[in-house]
Amino acid sequence: MKQVKFMLSEKEMPTSWYNILPDLPKPLPPLLHPGTKEPTILPPPLFPSAMRDQEFSKERYIEIPEEVQDIYKIWRPTPLHRAYRLEKALDTPAKIFYKYEGVSPAGSHKLNTAIAQAYYAKQDGIKRFATETGAGQWGSALSLGTAFFGLECKVYMVKVSYQQKPYRRIMMETWGAKCVASPSEDTAIGRKILAEDPHSPGSLGIAISEAIEDAFGRDDTYYSIGSVINCVLLHQTVIGQEAKKQMEMAGFYPDIIVGCVGGGSNFAGMFLPFVKDKLEGKKPKLRIINVEPEACPSLTQGPYAWDYGDIAGMAPIAKMNTLGHTFIPDKIHAGGLRYHGMAPIICHLHQLGFVEAKAVPQTTTFEAGIQFARTEGIISAPETSHAIRVAIDEALACKKSGESKTILLAHSGHGHFDLAAYDDYLTGKIKDHKVSAAKIKEALAQLPQVEYAGA
Amino acid sequence: MKQVKFMLSEKEMPTSWYNILPDLPKPLPPLLHPGTKEPTILPPPLFPSAMRDQEFSKERYIEIPEEVQDIYKIWRPTPLHRAYRLEKALDTPAKIFYKYEGVSPAGSHKLNTAIAQAYYAKQDGIKRFATETGAGQWGSALSLGTAFFGLECKVYMVKVSYQQKPYRRIMMETWGAKCVASPSEDTAIGRKILAEDPHSPGSLGIAISEAIEDAFGRDDTYYSIGSVINCVLLHQTVIGQEAKKQMEMAGFYPDIIVGCVGGGSNFAGMFLPFVKDKLEGKKPKLRIINVEPEACPSLTQGPYAWDYGDIAGMAPIAKMNTLGHTFIPDKIHAGGLRYHGMAPIICHLHQLGFVEAKAVPQTTTFEAGIQFARTEGIISAPETSHAIRVAIDEALACKKSGESKTILLAHSGHGHFDLAAYDDYLTGKIKDHKVSAAKIKEALAQLPQVEYAGA
Repeated sequence: MKQVKFMLSEKEMPTSWYNILPDLPKPLPPLLHPGTKEPTILPPPLFPSAMRDQEFSKERYIEIPEEVQDIYKIWRPTPLHRAYRLEKALDTPAKIFYKYEGVSPAGSHKLNTAIAQAYYAKQDGIKRFATETGAGQWGSALSLGTAFFGLECKVYMVKVSYQQKPYRRIMMETWGAKCVASPSEDTAIGRKILAEDPHSPGSLGIAISEAIEDAFGRDDTYYSIGSVINCVLLHQTVIGQEAKKQMEMAGFYPDIIVGCVGGGSNFAGMFLPFVKDKLEGKKPKLRIINVEPEACPSLTQGPYAWDYGDIAGMAPIAKMNTLGHTFIPDKIHAGGLRYHGMAPIICHLHQLGFVEAKAVPQTTTFEAGIQFARTEGIISAPETSHAIRVAIDEALACKKSGESKTILLAHSGHGHFDLAAYDDYLTGKIKDHKVSAAKIKEALAQLPQVEYAGA
Repeated sequence: MKQVKFMLSEKEMPTSWYNILPDLPKPLPPLLHPGTKEPTILPPPLFPSAMRDQEFSKERYIEIPEEVQDIYKIWRPTPLHRAYRLEKALDTPAKIFYKYEGVSPAGSHKLNTAIAQAYYAKQDGIKRFATETGAGQWGSALSLGTAFFGLECKVYMVKVSYQQKPYRRIMMETWGAKCVASPSEDTAIGRKILAEDPHSPGSLGIAISEAIEDAFGRDDTYYSIGSVINCVLLHQTVIGQEAKKQMEMAGFYPDIIVGCVGGGSNFAGMFLPFVKDKLEGKKPKLRIINVEPEACPSLTQGPYAWDYGDIAGMAPIAKMNTLGHTFIPDKIHAGGLRYHGMAPIICHLHQLGFVEAKAVPQTTTFEAGIQFARTEGIISAPETSHAIRVAIDEALACKKSGESKTILLAHSGHGHFDLAAYDDYLTGKIKDHKVSAAKIKEALAQLPQVEYAGA
């Protein structure tokens, strides 16, 4: 009988997060203050002290608090699957494995950091979080994270998503969070925008600004972000540490690891423990492929440059591959991949040649998602389907070449709240959104002028 | 560190289903033909031969085909959780465990039988299934089951649900099934009803009639049912067999097992392997509580009588607790619990005193569902929340009495597609639906006259 899943016991769950910073061959450039443009830390009134320490920590392993581990155990360790049925449908000699984060109650990897953030905020005596959400994945994860620790949570949800995805909003409310459509009447910036345009559909940039204003204005409130920054990637390294042990159980080491990247936290969480092997010279041939949408190709088409983390220029400036902080991608269904920049750690590793990147058109990702659903059963988030596309392409390349490569797919979450997108695909309403060079050029003209030459 | 989940390896997954029929102290009454009213079998042109054999088999253990086991492994064995966080919130000395079937790709236990049915149909050389679905759980499970075996699937979905729950319909289509609103133009009975009332909202009874007509009319097509009959309960016994081993791992034997019942297949799948211990006299004090909605109280208020399985009187007549086959329950959100009868095996065990039953009002089930979501993280199906209500009530009774009972909850599935119902609850729109004695009396007047005295 074949083994389909490789499961770890709770005792085998990692007890530390892996911090790659001390292992990097060249140091990661710092964050710069958006005003002074000098090196800075995560702003103290907005972030838990533990996370500020973690952001540039020199410790290789950072212990996961026991209370956080106990909550992780509700769904972790997550399964590693061998995709026998997909392999058979593709008639490929490749071996495809996927690590499935969709078993979390919030439906994706996002809960790994949401719980840590809520725990640390509680430690600091904070009572409340404010955050933004686009499609709703992050807002739901933080709503549950805060519910576990008895904290309040206020989510500013981009109005167009708030209207299109009521189930995500209800999910947050079921866990006890308050969710408002952004722009809202609850902040000065929201009121200003509504005064100018009462029918504003909102944007992630506006929602971030509302959440930050909310958190700045109250002593009992932190601001929370679900990706991009170092400590959020750190919290996600439970994924890759588990996957490494599980691949050992299966008796294979991957030739290729593939995952989708928006801010980059899910895929970095998977690959950082494997990159360690490359940094140590152990696995020079391992390929790590970051998959992004053709509509928002920061790694494949954006320069490695200093840029603001947010549209309003309130967040720190980071060195990253960016399409420009004013770049607004087309409204593809993979809302979680519509970020103008990319996690600085990923960009740094990309610069150093340890990871690669690929952009894929939207229609082909739905085709891959459907094939995955009909063979492996799981209906995937449109974000995840970007990674599935490339995993399938690599498996088909093996079919041509006759090679029996081992492919490890980072499966970030299910698509139960994205079925309207599947309906659009099945009824022929999905199109591709290749971005024009002119659009990128226009946004890149808005990059900040930075004199800093320290890194 | 405490252990939160008790997981079995794939090797520990049951390789047989447990058939209780040979262990019953008194034989189960037969099915009667709806025309002749004489003992009958499942109609051959509609059901796989293997299932016809299983329906009244004398074998205690029936081997699960290897191909079915391989597909089960995508999500099985399912986890057994200790609900530490709920226990703490209730401040109870009771120990609450739950066996979680929501990790299946279709979101509930229904997939356990859907895969077996599709496998057996394929063995018989059948190419296609026709079935009905109310809220959509069963239709989605069979859509995925048939996708795994390359069969076609046509689902007649009650029109009002088809319109209210588009995500369920899209889920089926994503897996490749065809789903139409019932009454449809695709059958004679559908066309007849539409001719009389073009705006008919449909009913489960109409949808069953359409599916049966479809299957009767084509040699390549079987009809499929997702609960009630013996062999479907049989397929669900993987749940209870796993749970028994997992409770042993946890070091406890349940004092109380609780689950929700509509047709009864999920909860019977859980409790039948435990009832075996009671039949053998080993666990006389074990309580098994079937929870049903106050709006459809077949076990608590229906007589144990001969009645048709369907509204149209086309299905076999079974001896069961029934509210009458013409009984139409109010439109509570737990659509899966709106069946006029109950699995004959459950009713028989109820008659013999091995299991008990309790009916609960709708509002209290949502209250329980919310408490479960905010402590254990999982958003439950409204059906499951009926069982959660009683599990919590029993735990609170322990708090009063100071007893530290062990409660095992059969958690049948997640509520990702039921969030509109949660929204109604959170905004005060949910009410109770206690059924009137007059309504039951009226439906019971339509029970068939049966002379059969064999059992």
